[in-house]
Amino acid sequence: MLIGGIEAGGTKFVCAVGDENGKVLDKVSFPTGDPDATLAEAKAFFDQHDITALGVGTFGPVDLNRHSDTYGNILNTPKTKWRNYPLLKKFQADYSVPVYLDTDVNAACLGEYNYGVSRGVDSCLYITVGTGIGAGLVQDGKVFQGRNHSEMGHILVQKHEEDPFEGACPSHGSCIEGLASGTAIEKRYSKKGIELVDNEKVWEIEAYYLAQAIMNYFVVLQPEKIILGGGVMKQEKLYSMIRQQFMELLNGYLQVENVNELIVAPSLEDEQGVLGAIALCE
Amino acid sequence: MLIGGIEAGGTKFVCAVGDENGKVLDKVSFPTGDPDATLAEAKAFFDQHDITALGVGTFGPVDLNRHSDTYGNILNTPKTKWRNYPLLKKFQADYSVPVYLDTDVNAACLGEYNYGVSRGVDSCLYITVGTGIGAGLVQDGKVFQGRNHSEMGHILVQKHEEDPFEGACPSHGSCIEGLASGTAIEKRYSKKGIELVDNEKVWEIEAYYLAQAIMNYFVVLQPEKIILGGGVMKQEKLYSMIRQQFMELLNGYLQVENVNELIVAPSLEDEQGVLGAIALCE
Repeated sequence: MLIGGIEAGGTKFVCAVGDENGKVLDKVSFPTGDPDATLAEAKAFFDQHDITALGVGTFGPVDLNRHSDTYGNILNTPKTKWRNYPLLKKFQADYSVPVYLDTDVNAACLGEYNYGVSRGVDSCLYITVGTGIGAGLVQDGKVFQGRNHSEMGHILVQKHEEDPFEGACPSHGSCIEGLASGTAIEKRYSKKGIELVDNEKVWEIEAYYLAQAIMNYFVVLQPEKIILGGGVMKQEKLYSMIRQQFMELLNGYLQVENVNELIVAPSLEDEQGVLGAIALCE
Repeated sequence: MLIGGIEAGGTKFVCAVGDENGKVLDKVSFPTGDPDATLAEAKAFFDQHDITALGVGTFGPVDLNRHSDTYGNILNTPKTKWRNYPLLKKFQADYSVPVYLDTDVNAACLGEYNYGVSRGVDSCLYITVGTGIGAGLVQDGKVFQGRNHSEMGHILVQKHEEDPFEGACPSHGSCIEGLASGTAIEKRYSKKGIELVDNEKVWEIEAYYLAQAIMNYFVVLQPEKIILGGGVMKQEKLYSMIRQQFMELLNGYLQVENVNELIVAPSLEDEQGVLGAIALCE
């Protein structure tokens, strides 16, 4: 049985065909362009395969409220051509198989939960720290969702005392996305993260913010596993800095047996997104 | 069919017998004393009724991790006689019917979800602001739980610029419980909240903190309904102040159709705890 999966990112689309065991059999990726042209490119790939279902993990915000008239539409994204684009309806029109839609980060979380580093746990949080910050939770095998998908990148955090930066989020300033995303790092220092690798203070502040966000997610959601992915986390030294600051912030209030096993890197070599998209069909 | 419910609070126990429609038929309450004596008093009440199951919503922290050796035990509470008390095992030994255990605030949330102001919604957050601060979430009819119950009172929040108080939480200082619980108000001003009713600044700061906590819970959990209960919320003017500050903090990022319907008071006249405890048995 072949299943199709799409990681519909804001920068690139990854399309894959796999089986129910999480084995990817064919894969293609291309830049995200205009909506109709991008979907046509995806269709051309899947036309070569006999898929029985299609799962899509998309960039957001996206309307995932099933009671809503605009269910499955992209919402107010800065990518103007995609704004209000009826993504799910377009997919349903293009394909004769059932289509399952969720966010990119929820799909990535489900991918790691089913096939990766969080296999065997009951609850897993996946946080991506890239251009923006987002997070998804899988609990007892299901993606968590309230009235719509979570917007965890917008929790407010305490400012670092040596950080005068007012924040990059146009809505909230000092939310975690506004202070710790790749965009925030670039705006704060007028340099790309990659040019700041040797500046210790940059990563101390970054780890402080991410540890604080994780502390807040942790007391609210109590996940068994917390996966930190995304471009900013390619600075691998961040993991140990975040773990240390997280434990200091938690201050023994809740028991953590082994923080090195609690806060971890993704394990599926950037395939967690498509694998999770495929798993959405189960 | 009669079901027993206990709201096992740190100050008082409320025991009730009800039916599956949320009708309370008999009820008693008494101060929380030593553990064994308190449980004996509860038993004396339930011995008068032929119950088929018992639900208990308890103060915490309590071990609700089913994989744990100490599942059902009270954990590290300041009430020293209750520390490590095997609450669930004691109930199971005392009663010949199935016993269901959760936290007091999760039970209260379930009570409102089944019988109260949040009936008909898919997800509901119940926050209690009293001596401490706690919150519980019911999602699709089930109490949300990760590796253990949520500890939402311990999220970190940004300090109000006119608040020099360092916070009352021994673990975190400036978490929401440390800054906005009844205990925090009393420590900050060396007066009880009730003596501060006419001091506008007190409630402005209080509303600022609670609005911030709600903002963070909201973006993470996206509940359809947020119920604010507990002793501090008896200051009814807080509701409109919190709603206003919440909308300012959210700043249009997520759509809220009617904040007066999103953030509300409890509806069950202090019976949400026992009703929810009864509903735990369903």
